[in-house]
Amino acid sequence: MNPAPLGKLCIHTITTKPWTIETAAARFAAAGVQGITVWRDTLAGRDIAKTGRMIRDHGLSVVSLCRGGFFPGRTAAERLSALDDNRLAIAEARALGAPHVVLVCGAVPGQPLTESRKQIQEGIAALLPECQAAGVKLAIEPLHPMYADSRSAVNTLGQANDMVEALKSPYVGVAVDVYHVWWDPALESEIARCGRLKALFAYHVCDWRTPTTDLLNDRGLMGEGCIPLRQIRAWVEATGFRGFNEVEVFSTRLWATDQDEYLKKIVQAYKDHV
Amino acid sequence: MNPAPLGKLCIHTITTKPWTIETAAARFAAAGVQGITVWRDTLAGRDIAKTGRMIRDHGLSVVSLCRGGFFPGRTAAERLSALDDNRLAIAEARALGAPHVVLVCGAVPGQPLTESRKQIQEGIAALLPECQAAGVKLAIEPLHPMYADSRSAVNTLGQANDMVEALKSPYVGVAVDVYHVWWDPALESEIARCGRLKALFAYHVCDWRTPTTDLLNDRGLMGEGCIPLRQIRAWVEATGFRGFNEVEVFSTRLWATDQDEYLKKIVQAYKDHV
Repeated sequence: MNPAPLGKLCIHTITTKPWTIETAAARFAAAGVQGITVWRDTLAGRDIAKTGRMIRDHGLSVVSLCRGGFFPGRTAAERLSALDDNRLAIAEARALGAPHVVLVCGAVPGQPLTESRKQIQEGIAALLPECQAAGVKLAIEPLHPMYADSRSAVNTLGQANDMVEALKSPYVGVAVDVYHVWWDPALESEIARCGRLKALFAYHVCDWRTPTTDLLNDRGLMGEGCIPLRQIRAWVEATGFRGFNEVEVFSTRLWATDQDEYLKKIVQAYKDHV
Repeated sequence: MNPAPLGKLCIHTITTKPWTIETAAARFAAAGVQGITVWRDTLAGRDIAKTGRMIRDHGLSVVSLCRGGFFPGRTAAERLSALDDNRLAIAEARALGAPHVVLVCGAVPGQPLTESRKQIQEGIAALLPECQAAGVKLAIEPLHPMYADSRSAVNTLGQANDMVEALKSPYVGVAVDVYHVWWDPALESEIARCGRLKALFAYHVCDWRTPTTDLLNDRGLMGEGCIPLRQIRAWVEATGFRGFNEVEVFSTRLWATDQDEYLKKIVQAYKDHV
């Protein structure tokens, strides 16, 4: 398979966490990167519309806003509060010029997963009027089963596709992140199904290290692990997907390195492995 | 649902790792435990048949031998060496008087999971003559997807059931461990299918802690986490399963505590939560 084109490289602000959004936008652009996915924490204290213009002035596309979600709650009050935060995320995405908000759907430890899944689907359904009014979509990101306790009760692409089918809205789709789904024996068929549903909104890459020493912040840069990245991108592109390949790496180890050097490594790893 | 009967409590020797097998057998029996699953490391330097008699003299049943597996390898020589180790495990189970060997099936980082799964199935098939001769069965344990890189390419109960169906032997079944499968949306239906296949050989319990701080050795004692233990046991027993409920906890935290006190806690947690 051909290497992924540099023009389709997007980097998440969380990948170079030590940088402000202004620094990230400037350095990404200088490195030839053409897409940026913005994490909401980087917008704190900023005029969001102006930040969107700043990003576009660098020639970058705003690919996604990360993240909304966390719909389940023990009480109705908690669930309503989650909806409010998601409405804020939709408004932020609109102001920033992001086409969709990525959803980490949430889970409550000890609450049955079936109940959390029901609450997630109800939460997304409740947001659809705001999505339509704002022209902002929602991308369900299935999370690895190791996060089923407290981060997401949606743990396979099949479940995300089921939810997309049930919600029947052009404003609801899926963000496929290789870290979460690479192990799934149904991955190829569920990527194809996601494509048929016209629901493949985003594609995230990184790698799985052996050994992995932390459940959250020990992801690998592409090429440092065992994920068959070219195989999975082939399946994704076979659906007609022509979006960005988004580099999303949470890594205490890599955040501690010089971020300018790290950015060079990201671009090289993208060329060599994505 | 009724609490699990004390007569169905089995403890894995790894759960009280600081103890020798002689100490474990004596203390388990004194606490009213009736089953023990033996990890192979505890047999080092022992006469295995004599150790089996020692265990039975305490009134304990030998429930399983842990563990065989790790079939995949980059080279034929590695795969043959894995088969030799599994043959040794089968011989040890026979000498000990264990009805089956639990299989952690293996994976090679970077080797396609489909290839590893093929090598696993071929490896198990190659062992069936020895199984029949020794009267020892093999129990495929699907492992959590977070171990797909290097420990097992069999990551769901559905995949384990598929392999049992393909191998068509009364000597091949499944060990269901809640830690690995609790998140799976297909769990109830796959447990029922495993029962219909007459392949549910073993049932392991522990709990999933929030947060989990280590991928291997931070399991919880039952009640310390979010796994719906009574719900899952109900599904298991609905298949007709009447075997032991095996407590298998890897925990650096709990291994560091006084093991006599810990054993009391295990028995209480079993009564309260399994």
